[in-house]
Amino acid sequence: MIPIVSIVGRSESGKTTLLEGIIPLLVQKGYAIGTIKHTTHVSSLDREGKDSWRHAQAGAKVALISTPRALGIFRSLEQEKGWEELIDSYLSDVDLVLAEGFKAEKIPKIEVLRGQPRGELLTKEDPTLLAVVSDSAPPVEVPHFSLEDYQGLANFLEERLLRRSNKEEIRLQVDGQRVPLNPFVQDLFHSMVLAMLSPLKGIGSFSRVSLHLERTMNKKISGT
Amino acid sequence: MIPIVSIVGRSESGKTTLLEGIIPLLVQKGYAIGTIKHTTHVSSLDREGKDSWRHAQAGAKVALISTPRALGIFRSLEQEKGWEELIDSYLSDVDLVLAEGFKAEKIPKIEVLRGQPRGELLTKEDPTLLAVVSDSAPPVEVPHFSLEDYQGLANFLEERLLRRSNKEEIRLQVDGQRVPLNPFVQDLFHSMVLAMLSPLKGIGSFSRVSLHLERTMNKKISGT
Repeated sequence: MIPIVSIVGRSESGKTTLLEGIIPLLVQKGYAIGTIKHTTHVSSLDREGKDSWRHAQAGAKVALISTPRALGIFRSLEQEKGWEELIDSYLSDVDLVLAEGFKAEKIPKIEVLRGQPRGELLTKEDPTLLAVVSDSAPPVEVPHFSLEDYQGLANFLEERLLRRSNKEEIRLQVDGQRVPLNPFVQDLFHSMVLAMLSPLKGIGSFSRVSLHLERTMNKKISGT
Repeated sequence: MIPIVSIVGRSESGKTTLLEGIIPLLVQKGYAIGTIKHTTHVSSLDREGKDSWRHAQAGAKVALISTPRALGIFRSLEQEKGWEELIDSYLSDVDLVLAEGFKAEKIPKIEVLRGQPRGELLTKEDPTLLAVVSDSAPPVEVPHFSLEDYQGLANFLEERLLRRSNKEEIRLQVDGQRVPLNPFVQDLFHSMVLAMLSPLKGIGSFSRVSLHLERTMNKKISGT
């Protein structure tokens, strides 16, 4: 599982500024970083008049803009996706996910406190609080970083979330849903996938394998 | 493989307007539609000042905005992705991909001709041209639809690209790259995946299976 930490804090406390400070330091250390911003304001995505927005408005499920150095993907949803599904689907190639929001989720959190009197932590009773970033010492027993100590916080995140031991993981998705596998079945599938690959030419060392099976059922034959 | 067709035409010929006309008709027929707009203008993605843009500018490889009804994903690239890889990675759950651009690629095309004298087709010599949409009959021997005949074009696309026979497909990706499999290995992998799933409880009928194997190598242990 890719580690995630969420930056929480009141409006205007400087969550995005903090992310802007620590992302380059983590990238410099060699980590690939993904971010998730959670918001209920659909307008955050509005790009009225842009072609991909027009495609989406016309009913496209996914509208993609491809440029030489970046991709933009707009995907309409029937129901909101949880952070675990978002990571599985769109952030599987990063080392660490930094989130903004997700205050109510059971994920590790860093709270930013700026210009607030002592004691006004959103996460005061929250066992998932990892650290506080604030201008004065917080009234809780967790590591504390000053507002400008990006390097200290980046080192802390590396220490706590990124220095994991070697491990291998096998995941199964059926029709987009993760199917839980017990450790025995995980081991079995793992050995079988490696065995399936072993006679193939041109595959040397690798870190990720995906095997997709698709059955195209011809259920839409009748037209309108 | 998910079918793709690209709408090509000169600037201001009405490619996006045509897509806005046919997407709702295909959605009404029950198809999930994805779109890809290809452009060299990176500014198409600029959303200066927005938080996810700030995350990406700071160096995040992927910046995601999650709202209850839609997702926005901004992904920076080291090199441009081809349409096949884009479909594999981001459009695997649609029935048809409608593209804008990709004029030079070997994919089926519809050319839109608006207010142009006869004979000025971009695709005149192109064997991948499927049909022309224009106000007067085009000088090539392919089906022709008038500029407002969205229903005719939607029916044509359904007939030509969506009414396929049942088939099953197996794809292997290693570190994000598709590995070609010959038909024998495809059959073998297909049977093995189905055999691996068969003893698992709670899996009934399904149309897609993905099996992911990840090796987390601890190559980043040394910090800065």
